[in-house]
Formats: sequence, structure tokens, C-alpha cells
Amino acid sequence: MAPCKLTAINNRKKVAKMKTLLIALAASALITAPLVAQDTLQQTSIATTLAVDIAQAAVSACTADGYNVSAAVTDRSGVLLALVRSQNAGPHTVNASTQKAFTSASSRNPTSAIAENVSKNPVAAGMADIPGFLVLAGGVPIKAGKDTIGAIGVAGAPGGNLDEACANEAIEKVSARIN
Amino acid sequence: MAPCKLTAINNRKKVAKMKTLLIALAASALITAPLVAQDTLQQTSIATTLAVDIAQAAVSACTADGYNVSAAVTDRSGVLLALVRSQNAGPHTVNASTQKAFTSASSRNPTSAIAENVSKNPVAAGMADIPGFLVLAGGVPIKAGKDTIGAIGVAGAPGGNLDEACANEAIEKVSARIN
Amino acid sequence: MAPCKLTAINNRKKVAKMKTLLIALAASALITAPLVAQDTLQQTSIATTLAVDIAQAAVSACTADGYNVSAAVTDRSGVLLALVRSQNAGPHTVNASTQKAFTSASSRNPTSAIAENVSKNPVAAGMADIPGFLVLAGGVPIKAGKDTIGAIGVAGAPGGNLDEACANEAIEKVSARIN
Amino acid sequence: MAPCKLTAINNRKKVAKMKTLLIALAASALITAPLVAQDTLQQTSIATTLAVDIAQAAVSACTADGYNVSAAVTDRSGVLLALVRSQNAGPHTVNASTQKAFTSASSRNPTSAIAENVSKNPVAAGMADIPGFLVLAGGVPIKAGKDTIGAIGVAGAPGGNLDEACANEAIEKVSARIN
Amino acid sequence: MAPCKLTAINNRKKVAKMKTLLIALAASALITAPLVAQDTLQQTSIATTLAVDIAQAAVSACTADGYNVSAAVTDRSGVLLALVRSQNAGPHTVNASTQKAFTSASSRNPTSAIAENVSKNPVAAGMADIPGFLVLAGGVPIKAGKDTIGAIGVAGAPGGNLDEACANEAIEKVSARIN
Amino acid sequence: MAPCKLTAINNRKKVAKMKTLLIALAASALITAPLVAQDTLQQTSIATTLAVDIAQAAVSACTADGYNVSAAVTDRSGVLLALVRSQNAGPHTVNASTQKAFTSASSRNPTSAIAENVSKNPVAAGMADIPGFLVLAGGVPIKAGKDTIGAIGVAGAPGGNLDEACANEAIEKVSARIN
Amino acid sequence: MAPCKLTAINNRKKVAKMKTLLIALAASALITAPLVAQDTLQQTSIATTLAVDIAQAAVSACTADGYNVSAAVTDRSGVLLALVRSQNAGPHTVNASTQKAFTSASSRNPTSAIAENVSKNPVAAGMADIPGFLVLAGGVPIKAGKDTIGAIGVAGAPGGNLDEACANEAIEKVSARIN
Amino acid sequence: MAPCKLTAINNRKKVAKMKTLLIALAASALITAPLVAQDTLQQTSIATTLAVDIAQAAVSACTADGYNVSAAVTDRSGVLLALVRSQNAGPHTVNASTQKAFTSASSRNPTSAIAENVSKNPVAAGMADIPGFLVLAGGVPIKAGKDTIGAIGVAGAPGGNLDEACANEAIEKVSARIN
Repeated sequence: MAPCKLTAINNRKKVAKMKTLLIALAASALITAPLVAQDTLQQTSIATTLAVDIAQAAVSACTADGYNVSAAVTDRSGVLLALVRSQNAGPHTVNASTQKAFTSASSRNPTSAIAENVSKNPVAAGMADIPGFLVLAGGVPIKAGKDTIGAIGVAGAPGGNLDEACANEAIEKVSARIN
Repeated sequence: MAPCKLTAINNRKKVAKMKTLLIALAASALITAPLVAQDTLQQTSIATTLAVDIAQAAVSACTADGYNVSAAVTDRSGVLLALVRSQNAGPHTVNASTQKAFTSASSRNPTSAIAENVSKNPVAAGMADIPGFLVLAGGVPIKAGKDTIGAIGVAGAPGGNLDEACANEAIEKVSARIN
Repeated sequence: MAPCKLTAINNRKKVAKMKTLLIALAASALITAPLVAQDTLQQTSIATTLAVDIAQAAVSACTADGYNVSAAVTDRSGVLLALVRSQNAGPHTVNASTQKAFTSASSRNPTSAIAENVSKNPVAAGMADIPGFLVLAGGVPIKAGKDTIGAIGVAGAPGGNLDEACANEAIEKVSARIN
Repeated sequence: MAPCKLTAINNRKKVAKMKTLLIALAASALITAPLVAQDTLQQTSIATTLAVDIAQAAVSACTADGYNVSAAVTDRSGVLLALVRSQNAGPHTVNASTQKAFTSASSRNPTSAIAENVSKNPVAAGMADIPGFLVLAGGVPIKAGKDTIGAIGVAGAPGGNLDEACANEAIEKVSARIN
Repeated sequence: MAPCKLTAINNRKKVAKMKTLLIALAASALITAPLVAQDTLQQTSIATTLAVDIAQAAVSACTADGYNVSAAVTDRSGVLLALVRSQNAGPHTVNASTQKAFTSASSRNPTSAIAENVSKNPVAAGMADIPGFLVLAGGVPIKAGKDTIGAIGVAGAPGGNLDEACANEAIEKVSARIN
Repeated sequence: MAPCKLTAINNRKKVAKMKTLLIALAASALITAPLVAQDTLQQTSIATTLAVDIAQAAVSACTADGYNVSAAVTDRSGVLLALVRSQNAGPHTVNASTQKAFTSASSRNPTSAIAENVSKNPVAAGMADIPGFLVLAGGVPIKAGKDTIGAIGVAGAPGGNLDEACANEAIEKVSARIN
Repeated sequence: MAPCKLTAINNRKKVAKMKTLLIALAASALITAPLVAQDTLQQTSIATTLAVDIAQAAVSACTADGYNVSAAVTDRSGVLLALVRSQNAGPHTVNASTQKAFTSASSRNPTSAIAENVSKNPVAAGMADIPGFLVLAGGVPIKAGKDTIGAIGVAGAPGGNLDEACANEAIEKVSARIN
Repeated sequence: MAPCKLTAINNRKKVAKMKTLLIALAASALITAPLVAQDTLQQTSIATTLAVDIAQAAVSACTADGYNVSAAVTDRSGVLLALVRSQNAGPHTVNASTQKAFTSASSRNPTSAIAENVSKNPVAAGMADIPGFLVLAGGVPIKAGKDTIGAIGVAGAPGGNLDEACANEAIEKVSARIN
């Protein structure tokens, strides 16, 4: 693999450009710093009813496509609010969907974007090892404007992009109730 | 504690009697042994729709009593099918309800019965250390006749007996759909 | 231990009374159920600045008493916001203080109350096995009125009651900034 | 590695084609969605006797080739039914074979296919991090027609493809008893 | 519980006597110290074939009594050689039987003896927390003369003493092949 | 067990007295608080050579008594410096000895003292659940004057008090090299 | 990827050169071997006050850049001394920052250097799997001269190099207090 | 990365050849299958004294080169017999050396060979995820003829090949005592 690597060393600018893309992509994680130190703060999070509806909508969307999945919805802190598993989805989908949701809630990014970045930026491989993270498409933040108020993770379809499509379909379905 | 213990040694028959009670209580775990070796078998398990309904019913029952809980429903193998957490229930209730459900699905007994037995039978204390078990009231098997086809676990009410009451109320509500 | 146990069986009413006490004690976990289903909710949590101040105040309070401790402060979801360890406190105090804080944030009760209940109510022993819980005095919820907005956990003093005293002293010191 | 990567960016269509292949390969995971919501369902799983026979057959097949292995057989939910370890197989083969079997039972695919896909599709690398999964050849679903009713995992031969060969030989040996 | 405890303090001699009993009971763990330092040693362990036979015999013995169990057999180092689970035994029995076998192989004592001691000797409670241990009846060492060459663990019967009976029955059945 | 417990409630003073004893016993954990905040500090810890000698001395002491044990020695931060296992000691003794040493290094107390306190003070039971702790006799701090500079843990003898005796014998043997 | 790999095989010298670079880079881990065996040693570590100041400085530096992060500071043994999390930083940043700090304290290298090496040296990939390690930029040793006396880890910025910049800025700010 | 990969697909024969090399390299894992089923077997393992000597020799060899390491020696089952850590080696070296030794004892191969294979054979990447394995140079089997009777793992030098050199030097030093 040496030539590829040596070339990489000779192409530091390209690597730098990739890093900038990575930053741009992840930039939704930025929140303007508070001007004055505060002692308490108000945070918006999704409620149980909405979480159950989103999870069910995602499972239904995938079932309509012929895929058996689990869908997990967390609050803004990444704590599970609702999980629905198709009775034909494998047991691994429970943890996989939950960890995808946690990853998106905590990083405020779709897991597909993180997976894409990690696959292109070898020095970022460690992101997949952060405790609780699962860097695999299918996790999507649930946002009210720019504020991440929860996240959904879907697992079990034959491809993370298919899981993600069900997640997005579910979020779209309830969008009127969030913003 | 010595005198109590020494008395215990002098009262082996009573201990034996307690063990018999323990066996009687747990006897629902017995399933008649098959007469002929079989290569495959048919098993009944609850489906997703029913699982979601039971979980929601349990959360509603506890909410009506003023308690914020998580309710987890597993299939007969102890794998999660549905989880609903009240947005005001603490994060620990996610794992607590899931483990209570697993304990009941796998042991085919209410966790309250196991907790009662363990508290009275010191040599059985190790049951609480079995991986995946949570020996605390609030887990209840879901049965079709004598066959355990799933389980529910509830956590978050100020007392395991209150969690269990919500679990039982939820099972009762759907009983017509099971048998 | 048999006679003690058998007596216990003959004293079911007393056990019941104890359970009621347990419920009363833990009743602060109750939050009135919402009348109407909501899709999102606002939650108050402590901010970083306050968390650091509380953690430092607790370590200082214990240092003044001659005890080397760690103090951990979490937000309302039980996620760490600040941790300070005295350089002379043992390494175990990092996890011990963090888990005490999580236990109090999630259960909305002092860990001393849970420990007291568990020690008197053998069927509740399983509470100590809930993932993330450490049932040992030294964890205290941080409240704004009746709302738990965070928690502190202190570990390292020679007795949980001493840890708890430092925690309470620190909360008292900042009370004007919370309510 | 940059040139390879940059080329990849310029070849998005090829990546898309690979993803389609991946989907095709994994398509055995699809199960037609039920038209009507059901409350309970019947599932077929392998029984103990068959599981022990398959595990022993796999160990024998590998022993005949001169390899010391463990063979694990799970039911359709991925729970171990039988494990046999050659006394000369290393201790790591116990967990390795069990996790390979779980991976195949839960994903309904041979682990070799998943490993092949992951190695060609960098964004899918996270599949190897799903809790309980071991993405390494040697796990094979046991099917009755199109229905996955269990799985076998073999570990210890000097190459996953050799482990897989023993697994397939064992399944073939009992095929008349399944379908 | 105070009077019991205070009495215990006044009865230190009895406690001492109990400790002596404990030692006597566990004395089978003693192996005469080698007179000369050696660089390598020969150890006897059970082989795969025997392990499978013992595991199957234990499951059969329990099935005959109407109990659904898992039986795990380890070599002298506590590494699994064979596991058989009745298709009607809960998933928790896999780990429970394996850990019982490890506990007996490593401590060279039946788990029932350890459980009995722990229940009578509060300062020994920590034995149940040793990583890999499950202090619950049902684990039995397999001995060739005084040398522990493996162990069996059984789990799933409604009482550890019943699990142990199946384990002993299985060992007895193969005793001619060991000594 | 109720009468014992109820009596306990009527004997709060005795409980208080016990707590005071607990504090006194653990008082060696106290280190006078620094008067001035410092940025760096000097700490004394045992070195490798001494650690190996202590571990070997402890194994030898137990071998002389006919017990097969592991002995683990950590530095002042609880990180392993040396471990020696008798080839006839069970595999569980590796972790058991290491955790006993960590517990003593971090708490600066013998594990026997902690076990004694926990057994007499039910509200302190949670100490056994602190991550990394093993509350079982056999762990002893290694001190230079009042400063804990390391710890030893011994496991495998038929009784924690016997493990502790070997640990103390080993420390005594090297005492001239420490102070 | 085959051609790259095959070329690599034909370019063993280049691989060897890369390994040498790796060694040079990591050479700060070397500490001259002691000429005489010692029984105890003196070690310098950072104190609590300094640790809190560094953690706060790092969070402030990142906040000024518009990034919400956690900053963790450990002593020379990798044990946490201080952690500060911005209230807007995700929950994963707590563990991520702590593990980055541990990795740098224990390896005495910036995590960015390890990540760079691992990404260029495939046979070193296992470094990312060492328990407690997180190989991702953002961890930096805190040095007094050549002696590593602690470490800081920062996590949460959209890129490890940005995390590292905040870490370095914080160390620089307190440099006068260390050397 | 697509072109590399597509080429790989067009070069299946080369991949096959690489797999054959992998098999050849790992062939030391083969042990001729027993002709007759046996009930017990005799196994040779290294003893404590030799284990301690090897561990100390490895630490000394690395110290002479200026590297601070941990050295762990296991018996043939991968259970630790001796561990020695240089007081200047980081805390991560304890687990790293122990896991390297386990990996070599259980696979009967140097970890450098496994790392080399994994780096060249992407479908074998999962080997690094086998529980207990650390696929990083520095682990070496200890053999009596062709029989693996233990293993050593070294960690802490700035490069796994340097760790391995110390391990080999230590084994060579005691070779007369093994064969």
C-alpha cells in the first residue's frame, strides 16, 4: 500500500482540503457561544408521543419497502424515548438502531456523513471507537430549526442508505409538529 | 448475626421447606419434556403491534397514577420489541425496564417472585448476578395459556410493586388479543 | 437466619408498612402527568459555570474537613458537566462520584435515601444493580423548586454521610443562583 | 492513499453500483411485509438435538482436515443451543464461533458475505462494530427454505474460508432433516 | 438487623469457628506445594468427547425430571468445551451455566458450597463479585482422584439444588471413564 | 427478617455508633489538606523491583502454607506493577488479586477492614459495587510511614484471612527497604 | 486495493523506512534506563488546581472559536483530575475527551501523532484497540521538561485538529506554572 | 478507492494466492487429529518460575534498549502467570501486554504475523475484533518443540517490532530450560 500512502504525503494540500470539507459538513455542530455565563438554561427536547410516532413511521416506511428494521428515537441527550422492532428484524437491530440514534443526537450530524468522512479521512477513524457511537448510515438528528432536539436511528435494511431513507421519511411525516 | 445463622443450621428442615416453596413458586418454568427428539420446533411469540400497544398501555397506566416510567416489551427470547419512556422518567429506566422484561421472559416468572425468593433464601442471592437479569419487581411474563410468548418490564415508579401493577394492567387490557 | 425470616413471613403487614414508607420517601419522583399529549417540551438544566462552581465547592468543603474527594456534577439527564478530584483522592473516586451523581439525577432522590431503603427492604436490593447506579450516600439532586435540574456526587470521605455533607454544603452555597 | 480516494470521489457511479451489489447480496434478509397487523406469530427454530449434531459434524469436518476448531449453533434468535470445542482449539474460538453464529442468525447472511462487503465498501465498516457481531468468515445461516431457523459459527481453522467450509459441510450433512 | 449483628460481635469465637469450617470445606483447593521449582508441568484435562457426553447427560437428566436447562462443561482452566441448551430453556441459562462451570473449575469446589459459605459468612460476600464467578448452586468440579480436570455447570431448573442434582447424575454416569 | 430490622430502627444510636467506628477505622484515608494551592506535586511510589519481590514473597508464603495463590502488586495509583500466579491457582485469582490490590491502593485500607465494615453497616453495601473494587480480605496497602505508596492483593487461599496473612508476611519481609 | 497491496509487498524497504519514522516520532516515550535497581521512586504530577484551570481554559478557547467541547485533564497515571463540559457539547464528549487524555498520558504522545502513524502504518492499526485508548486528535501530554506529568483531552469540535488547538492553547496559557 | 478495489476484483487469483500464504503462515496452528476419541488428555504448560524469569528478562532486554515496557506471560490456556511492568511504562501497557500474550497463546502465532496478514487481507480484519485479542506486534508463543506451552506479550516500546524483539530475546534466554 506504500505508493498510495507516499502519494498521500505528497498531496498534503488535498488532505487539507478534505479536512476543510469535513469541517464544513460537520459545521451544524456549532452553536454560537454565550456572551454571558449562565447558571441554568432552557432546552427543547422531543416528547414521548412524538418519539413513538416517529419510530412507528420509520418501521412502517421500511416495511413498505420490504425491509424489517428496528427504529429508535432518543431525546436531545441521546437517551432512548421509543423503540419499535419489526418482529422479523434480527436481534442486533435493537442495539444498532439505538447507537445510531445516540451518535446522531450527540454529534448533531447524520451518521452517514460521519461514515463518509471517516472513510475518506483515515486519521478520523477513531471516531468509530468513541463509546456509544455506531458510525453507520441510518442515524439522523431531529431538528427544530437549527436546534437538535432528538434523533432517530434505523437498522436492519440491507444497506445503511436504505435505513436512512426510512428515518428521513419518518421525520418528514411529522415535520409540521416540530417547527 | 451469628445466633440467627446458628439457628438456621439447627433448622435445616425449615430451610428445606422454604426451598420447596421456592420450587413451587417457580414451577411455571416447567414444560413437559418432549417424548421424541425433534429437529425443528414451532414457537409462538408476540408481534410488534401488540408489543407497542402493551408498552404504551403500561406507560399510560403509570402516568394515570402520577408515575413517570419506561415500559419495555420483549419477544419470547427476551429480545426487545418495543420500548416507551415517559419524557419525565429518568435515563436509568431504559435499561431497568429492559432488563426486567428480559428476566421475566427468560425465567418465565414475575421478577417480584424472584426478588421475594432471593430475599428469603440467601443461598439463591446469586440469581441477581446472572448476566442480563434485574431482580426487582416490575417484570411480568406475557402468556398465551401456559406458554410464555413475551414479557414486559416497567421501571420508574417509586416502588417495584407499583411498576408491576402498571405492567399487569397493560397485559390485562390486551388479554383478549392473546388467548 | 431462619427464625428471622420465618418471623418476617408472619409479619407481612409490617413489611407492607415498610413498603409504604419507601413509597412516601421516594415520592419526590412524582411529577404530575400532562393532561394533553405534547410533541416537544422545555426542560431546565444547570449550566457549565454553575456545575464547575458546585464541584469545586464540594471538594473545598471536604478538604476543609480533612477529606480528599472527587466531586462530579451532572445535568438533568445524568450526563457529566464537571468533575474535580483532589490530587490525594484515590482513582476509584472518579467513577464513584460520577455514578452517585447519575443515580441522584435519574432517580431524583439522594443516594442516602435509596441506600437506607434498600438496606431495610430486601426485595428492593435489585435497585443497586440498575446499570449506572451506585447506591451509596454522597449523591444529591440539585433542584430548582421541585424540578431536578442536575445532581452532584461526592466520593472519597471515610463514610458516605460525610460525602453527602460536602455535597449539601456546596449546593447550599450556590442556592441563590438556582431559585 | 489519497489518489485512490480522490479517484473514488470521481467515480461515484461505480460506488453506487457497488452499493447495489451489496443490496442484492444481502437481499435474502428481505421478508415480505405482512398485509395485516398480527398480534402473535409462529416461528420455526432448530431444536437442541439437531444443533448438537450440526456442531459435532462441523468439528469433525475440520478435524478431518487437520484443523482444531470450536463450532457454535444458535436458534433463530441468535441464542446458543450447542457449542463443541476441540480440546486443541484455543480459548478464543469459544467467543469467536459464538459471535459468528449470532451475526449470521441475526443478519440472515453468511459472515463471509458481510466481510466481503465491508472490505469493499468503506462506509459500511461500522457493521463490524454492531454489538455482538463478528464480521469474519465462518458464520452461516441454517435455513428451512427461505426462512433462517438458526445459524452455525466455526472458528479456529487457519483462515475463515476454511471455517466456513466446515460449517457448510455440517449443514449439508443434516439437510434432509431440515427441509 | 442490629441485635443479630451486635450479638455477632459478642460471639467472635463462633465467627472464628465458622471461618474454620469454611476453610475445611474449601480444603480440596489445596495442592501440596512442589519441593523443587519446575519450569514446565504436565496437567490432565478432560477431552471434547467426554465433555459433550457429560453435557448431554446433564440435560437429559433434567429433562427426565421435567426441567429445561443448559449444561456447560469446561476444561481444567475454565474454558468451555461443550454446551447444550434445551430448546425450551431461557437464554439466560447459557451464561448462567457457563459461569457456574467456570466458578467450579477455578475454585475446585461445588458452587453450592461457596453459596452456602457466603450466605453464612457476610465478610465473604465479595466472592460473588469475582469476575467470571456465579455463586449459585449447579456448578460441580469434575475430578480424577483429587485433581480437578474440568467442571460442569447446569442452569434452568427451578432451584440450584435441582441443577446440581442433574450435574452430579451426569458426572456419575461417566465416572468409569475418568478414574 | 422483619423483627431484626425493626429493632434496628429502634436502635438508631447503635447504628450511629457503628458509623463512628467505621469512620475511625477508615481514618487512615485522611491526609491533611494543603494550606496553599499547588500546581504540581511530588509523589512516592514503589518501584518495579520491589513490586516483583513482594509478589513473589507472597506467593512463596502461601505455598509454604499449602495454598496456591496469585499475588498482584500495584503502584500508588492502583496500576499493576507485578503479578505472580502459582501454576496451580485457578484463573479467577488473576483478576481477584488485581482488584484487591486496586481496592487497597485507592482506598488506603486493607480490604478486610472494608469487608468487615460493609458486613456490619448495610447502608455501606454499595462500596462493593464501586467499579474496580473487590471487597474481600487479601488486599493490603504498602505504606512508607503514613503514605500509601502501593498495594498488594492475594487471592486463592481457602479464606480471605489466609490470603491477607500471606500479603502481610510479604510486606514485612521487605519493610526495611521501604522506610 | 490489490495493486496497492502488491506494490507494498514489493516495496518492503519503504515500509521499513516508515517504521523508522514511526519510531522517531514516538521517541519521546523513551526514558533512560535506571543504572541501579531502586525500591521506591519520586514522581511529579500536576495538582488539582492546575488541572481545573487547564480544563476551563481549553473549553474557553474552543468556545471562543464557536465550538462546544468537553476538556478532561488527567494526572501522570491517566486518572482524571478535572473535567469540564460545555452545556451544549454532546454526551459523547465526556468519554471521548477522557480517553484522549488517558491515551496521551499513558503513551506520552499527542493522539494526533498516533492517529497519523496508525493511518500510515496498517500493521499498527491494533493500537486503536488497546483498552482505554482513543486514537483521535485532541489529546496532548502536559510536560515539565521531558517528563510527562499529566495530559489533556478535548472533544466536540468539528475536527480533531481543532480540538487539539484548544488543548495546546490551554497548556500554553499555564506554561509558566509548570516549568 | 474504487479503482484499487475494482482491480482487486479483477485479480481474484492474486487474492487467492495471498489467502494461501496466510494459511501457510498460520499452519503452525495445525495439530494432527487424534485417531481415537479420548476422554482425558495430558497437556504441557510452563510453570510459574519460568514465567517470572521470562517476564523479567523481557523487561530487562527492553530497558537495556532504553524502552519502558510491561511483559506478560500466560500458560497454554492464555491465563496470566506473570506480569512485570517497568515503573516508567504507561498504565495501558498492562492490558496491552496481557492481550498480546493471550492472542499468541490462543492462536499459536506471533501477533506480528496476524497483524501482517490482517493488513494485507481486508476480509480478515475481523480477527482484530475477537474478544481478548490484540492484533499488534509484541506477542510470541512459547513452544516446546511444536507444542505451544505458553506465550509472552510485551508492550510499551515505540513500535511493536521492538516489543517483539524483547520478547524473542527473553524466550531465547530460557530456551535451554524448555526443550
